Amino acid sequence: MKCSKCNRRAVYHQRHSGKHLCERHFIEYFERRVKLAVKKYNMIERGDKIAIALSGGKDSVCLTFALKKLYGIRRDIEFVAITIDEGIEGYRPPTVKIAKELTKSLDIEHYIVSFKEKFGMTLDEMVKLGDKKPCTYCGVFRKYLLNRTARELGATKLATGHNLDDETQTILLNFLQADIERLARLIPQRVQEGLILRIKPFREVYEREVVVYGLLNNLPLSFDECPYSYFPVRAAVRDFLYEFENKYPGRKFSVMRSFETLIPCLKQMYPQIKLTSCKKCGEPTPKEICQACTLLEELEQAKKSKVY
Amino acid sequence: MKCSKCNRRAVYHQRHSGKHLCERHFIEYFERRVKLAVKKYNMIERGDKIAIALSGGKDSVCLTFALKKLYGIRRDIEFVAITIDEGIEGYRPPTVKIAKELTKSLDIEHYIVSFKEKFGMTLDEMVKLGDKKPCTYCGVFRKYLLNRTARELGATKLATGHNLDDETQTILLNFLQADIERLARLIPQRVQEGLILRIKPFREVYEREVVVYGLLNNLPLSFDECPYSYFPVRAAVRDFLYEFENKYPGRKFSVMRSFETLIPCLKQMYPQIKLTSCKKCGEPTPKEICQACTLLEELEQAKKSKVY
Repeated sequence: MKCSKCNRRAVYHQRHSGKHLCERHFIEYFERRVKLAVKKYNMIERGDKIAIALSGGKDSVCLTFALKKLYGIRRDIEFVAITIDEGIEGYRPPTVKIAKELTKSLDIEHYIVSFKEKFGMTLDEMVKLGDKKPCTYCGVFRKYLLNRTARELGATKLATGHNLDDETQTILLNFLQADIERLARLIPQRVQEGLILRIKPFREVYEREVVVYGLLNNLPLSFDECPYSYFPVRAAVRDFLYEFENKYPGRKFSVMRSFETLIPCLKQMYPQIKLTSCKKCGEPTPKEICQACTLLEELEQAKKSKVY
Repeated sequence: MKCSKCNRRAVYHQRHSGKHLCERHFIEYFERRVKLAVKKYNMIERGDKIAIALSGGKDSVCLTFALKKLYGIRRDIEFVAITIDEGIEGYRPPTVKIAKELTKSLDIEHYIVSFKEKFGMTLDEMVKLGDKKPCTYCGVFRKYLLNRTARELGATKLATGHNLDDETQTILLNFLQADIERLARLIPQRVQEGLILRIKPFREVYEREVVVYGLLNNLPLSFDECPYSYFPVRAAVRDFLYEFENKYPGRKFSVMRSFETLIPCLKQMYPQIKLTSCKKCGEPTPKEICQACTLLEELEQAKKSKVY
C-alpha cells in the first residue's frame, strides 16, 4: 500500500481518516497533532521549565523524545526528566535503565527519586505491610513525589505521557461510575496553588500512534505491565472503547469532544478547592494532613506492630 | 430461593441490590419505583390528562396497565391511549390488536391513528417511494402524530414506555457520539410551547423488570422487533451496557445519575429554542416548514415522478 500523500510505502493505516501514511508523513502527522494539542491548551509557554514524568514505559519514552525534538531548540524552554522508582522488583529496574539511557542520549537532566529513599520503604514492602491496594500506595506516593520533585527543581509544568486512549478511558469510566467530580479533575490547565500544572501533550494521539512513532524513531519501548496493575472496571471500559473504535473509527475523538464540550459546565459545578499546606510535610493538600503522610503513618504503625 | 422480605418463593433476583423478591414484593418494589420517578419529576399532577403512547409492545402495554392501576382511582387525573399505526405489514397489526383489547379491558379511551389515513400512505409505501431510512420517516411522522393527536385530545402530558435501559443507551450513545445537544433533549420536564410534555414513568426501572411486571400481571407481551429496526451503533452500546451491568450491577443507575448531575449545565448550554408554527400544517417547529411536511413533500414528489 502506498502513502496517501506521496509515492512511498505506507507504514500506517489511519482508520478514522482512511489515510495510509509513509514513515515521513506519519511522523509529520503525529508531531503536528502533538503541537496542535500543546497550542490549544497553552501547554508549553515561553519561560517554562517542563518536568517530564518519565517512567521509562513506552508512552513517557516517546513523550520525552517528542518534546525534546519539537521544543528542544527553543532557548526559552527547559526540560528535566523525573523517574520515580517505586521499588517493584523485576518490573521497574529495566525501565529505570531505559530512562537513564534515553535522557543521557537526549542530553536531558534526569532525576531518579525512589520510594525507598524518600519514604523508607519500597512499594513491594508497603504492599506486604499495609492493607490497601498496591495502586493506592503507588498512586498517592508517586504523584506526591512527582509534584514535590518538580517543584523543588523549579519546574513550571509536569508533562505526562497520557494518550487519547488513556484519557477517553478515564472520561468514560468516570461517566459510567457517576463520578462527575473526578471527571472535572481531567479538565486541562486548571491552576491550583502548590500543584505543578500537569500537561498531557499526547492527549490527541492514539496509543497505537504513540507506539508507531516510537518504533519509527527506534526508541526503546517497554510494553511490560506492572505486576500490581489490577483495574477490572477500567479494563472493561478499555475493551469496549477498543471494539467501538474498531467498528466506528474516530469515536475516541468523539468522547474527547463530548468531554471538552462539558468543560465550561464542569468548571462551574466544581470550582477548584483551595489547598493548604500539610501540617506534617508542608505539601499541598485539601485536608489538614496530606494523603501521603496519612498512608505513611499507617504503614509505620503496621511496621511497629509487626516488629514488637 | 426465598424472598428476602418474607417467606414466599422468590420470582426475581435483583442483582444490584442482591435481593430476591416474591411476586408480591416484586410488584410492590416495581410500583414504588415508578411512583418515585413520577414524583421526582412531577410527571403526573392534579388536573392532568395523560395521553399514553401505546404501541402495543411490551413496554407501553405495561405502562398503560401500571398507570391505570396506580393513578386510575384518582378523579383529578384522566388517561387516554394513542396507538400510531405506521402501516408495517405483519408487524404492527398484532400489537394494534393487543392495544385495542388492553384499553378495552382497562376501560381507557383508545385512539388509533394511521399513517395511511393522515398522510395518504403507509410506512411500507413511504420506504418504497423515498430515499430515506425507514426509521427517519417513522420517527418524524410518529412523533408528529402523537403530539398532534395528544393536543387535539386536550392532553397535558404524553407518557412513553422508555425504561432505564432505553434511557441509559441513549445517554451513552449521545456521549460517545459527541452529540451533547441531543443529550440535552433527554432532560425531563422541559416545557416547550406547542409540544405536549413527554413523561417517562419507567425511566428508573430496568427493562427486565418491566417484563417481569408484565408477566406477573398476565399482560399480553409482544417481543416482536420492528422489521425495519436497524441501529448498529445503538446495538453496540446496548450490548456493552448489558455486559457492564452484568459484571457490575447497578451501573445503569450510575449512567442515569451522571446524566442527572449534568442537567443544570445542559440546561444552561442548550436553552430551549422557541418554536413557531409550521407554515403548511401549523404544527410546532423550529423552522419555517416542519420536518413532517418537508418529508411529505419529498414523498409526494417521488410519487409523481414515479407515476408520470
